[in-house]
Amino acid sequence: MSKQIAVTDLSVRCSPLVRQPLTSHDARDLALVFKALADPVRLQLFSLIASHVDGEACVCDISPAVDVSQPTISHHLKVLRDAGLLVSERRGTWVYYRVVPVALQALADSLVPESSGAPS
Amino acid sequence: MSKQIAVTDLSVRCSPLVRQPLTSHDARDLALVFKALADPVRLQLFSLIASHVDGEACVCDISPAVDVSQPTISHHLKVLRDAGLLVSERRGTWVYYRVVPVALQALADSLVPESSGAPS
Repeated sequence: MSKQIAVTDLSVRCSPLVRQPLTSHDARDLALVFKALADPVRLQLFSLIASHVDGEACVCDISPAVDVSQPTISHHLKVLRDAGLLVSERRGTWVYYRVVPVALQALADSLVPESSGAPS
Repeated sequence: MSKQIAVTDLSVRCSPLVRQPLTSHDARDLALVFKALADPVRLQLFSLIASHVDGEACVCDISPAVDVSQPTISHHLKVLRDAGLLVSERRGTWVYYRVVPVALQALADSLVPESSGAPS
């Protein structure tokens, strides 16, 4: 019954950081993604969503675990969504958030010299 | 003739972000590492060092490629070093910087659900 959540592909914004010098344009884009993760509360929220049942959660699921207001949580989730790390879907009263695995994989791949042994 | 560069192990500071909820302590530590990468100039400098011959470079090698002063470059490199992403070694007049592969791998591993297909 749930709608398909669109997947935002972050890979085009994650140039290989360690394989060749980043252009200033790529560095600016990639810095925005790291900046989204450069906040302890955002990291906790992101981790709560990523490790929640089925890899998705609404604010109602995660707000008890952090000591910040719901508007602040919503702001942080918007930053993560704008960075392409989360997607959201409204269902009734609540907005559900889900991590974007390909975005995380692209970010991880940007940090290591080359994919080690992963099948193509 | 060169001294062995000590490797700073960042892995203890990179809890798996997507496997279980981060503690506030782990989130704070991990956010500091992402914050070090959350600046376009720092990312460019880091990328220049990582992709330089033998994976190391001094300020003299990389300063022509970025439009900031040498003191600013040194400041950015200190932030990256303090985050455990670079190590440095003085040789004569210059300080040489080298990326820490295990730190990058630990950070990459923190972003993906599990190592896919890597031998244990």
